[in-house]
Amino acid sequence: MSTEPAPTPPAPVRSRRRPRLSPRVRAWVIAGVSLLGGYLISTARQAVVRPPLVVGQDAVPPSGTDTARVTLENVGGPVIDIRPAQGEADTLLVFYPGGLVRPQAYEWLGRALAAQGVQTVIPAFPLDLAVTGIGRAEGLIAQYGQGKRVVIAGHSLGGAMAAQYAANNPDALAGLILMAAYPAENVSLKDRTLPVLSLLAERDGVAAPDDVRGGLDRLPEGTTLTVIPGAVHSFFGRYGPQKGDGLPTVTHAQAEGEILNAVQDFLTGLK
Amino acid sequence: MSTEPAPTPPAPVRSRRRPRLSPRVRAWVIAGVSLLGGYLISTARQAVVRPPLVVGQDAVPPSGTDTARVTLENVGGPVIDIRPAQGEADTLLVFYPGGLVRPQAYEWLGRALAAQGVQTVIPAFPLDLAVTGIGRAEGLIAQYGQGKRVVIAGHSLGGAMAAQYAANNPDALAGLILMAAYPAENVSLKDRTLPVLSLLAERDGVAAPDDVRGGLDRLPEGTTLTVIPGAVHSFFGRYGPQKGDGLPTVTHAQAEGEILNAVQDFLTGLK
Repeated sequence: MSTEPAPTPPAPVRSRRRPRLSPRVRAWVIAGVSLLGGYLISTARQAVVRPPLVVGQDAVPPSGTDTARVTLENVGGPVIDIRPAQGEADTLLVFYPGGLVRPQAYEWLGRALAAQGVQTVIPAFPLDLAVTGIGRAEGLIAQYGQGKRVVIAGHSLGGAMAAQYAANNPDALAGLILMAAYPAENVSLKDRTLPVLSLLAERDGVAAPDDVRGGLDRLPEGTTLTVIPGAVHSFFGRYGPQKGDGLPTVTHAQAEGEILNAVQDFLTGLK
Repeated sequence: MSTEPAPTPPAPVRSRRRPRLSPRVRAWVIAGVSLLGGYLISTARQAVVRPPLVVGQDAVPPSGTDTARVTLENVGGPVIDIRPAQGEADTLLVFYPGGLVRPQAYEWLGRALAAQGVQTVIPAFPLDLAVTGIGRAEGLIAQYGQGKRVVIAGHSLGGAMAAQYAANNPDALAGLILMAAYPAENVSLKDRTLPVLSLLAERDGVAAPDDVRGGLDRLPEGTTLTVIPGAVHSFFGRYGPQKGDGLPTVTHAQAEGEILNAVQDFLTGLK
């Protein structure tokens, strides 16, 4: 037997701090992480894959007669363009849809307004969330707004983002229409002279009427608040019932008539 | 060294035919199977977790005036029970919803019919698929049908299942109403004397008009086919637009008026 000290083994390149998992534990960890991954992929897929963008899906205006020309175009992304069939429009309405609502849900309103010389453009946002493209109106106004009075409108989340756009672009707009919506807490148009119409659905269960009324504190003095009697949050668009919404006491068609009247009165008042 | 033969090792209890997978391959297999499993769990969850069952969600009848008494009850599962506010009903209408459509989507029709002395019951089926409980009408008729004329109706898949129920129960019914629906290929009511109303949405993109017309070959001679002009598949219920559906040329409200007229005429004809 040698009495010499054993040679020092070379130091490991990097030390393994974690003890190596046993094969069984390792298998369970891999299974758990993969299971969660698969679950999340399917869940994300539902958010990313939106229903088809179809023009004319449920878009006949309340009057039942429809003379608008409607095309699907691409201006910084897909946009539904609704023009009067005859003559030129004197007003451009840029409409931001509610969160997770496809743009064609508001086509009925554009078709109804076309008879009054209004052109309406309704952009489709990534994931159907207007928050992904608050400035989208800019390109649309550049493309369609030449020589026209420009008004921005939005429903729900789309309304909040329209108010945000109006706050960021003080000189671009002749009016703002909020449907079941209000400016975010950190956005104020209080000191502006911009004409604003705020539509409140009396039975709204999603945008609480108190919150919509509270939003008036962040809107100009002269803002018009119009209550749509008996209506609910989902009655501004044609996309079906909405979880958490209130119970209406009028038909969807009656609510649309009231909404249309209020919007037409507001637009006429700008002229 | 011993020259004796080595002792025979005990035979393995069962032979391993598959070679043992290497740890790396085994980890990939576990990951792949688990990923797929997670994906399927999330997908299945969407099918199993249905939107809430809410009475009165979007249910004001086309007339705008609503006097029905509506309750959510349990007869072999949840059922929406819609009765005339005053007086007794002389007719019971059992209504099977379309596939994946919540029962409250048809509450408008029951509320509209209540004024004419009709009680309407709309069961919720497991997974919102009437095929999971074709015989559900039996318990509902036993519970609510005493002394009443009983009519069964259904939309889309619900209509096909209502026809199936009528075929299985020749003596239980005074009438059958199919909305954008037809009996399955292997179901025939051809030789029955049952009064049948078949409603066809002119612009239906889901139940093709040719298929609805073709279904007349499996319905009694005297069946009434009524076309709802300009309507689409989703206009029988209030559940929003439907993938693959046609483009309507009338408003949802106009279509409902036509549907209601046709149903009222049919029910009056039974008296």
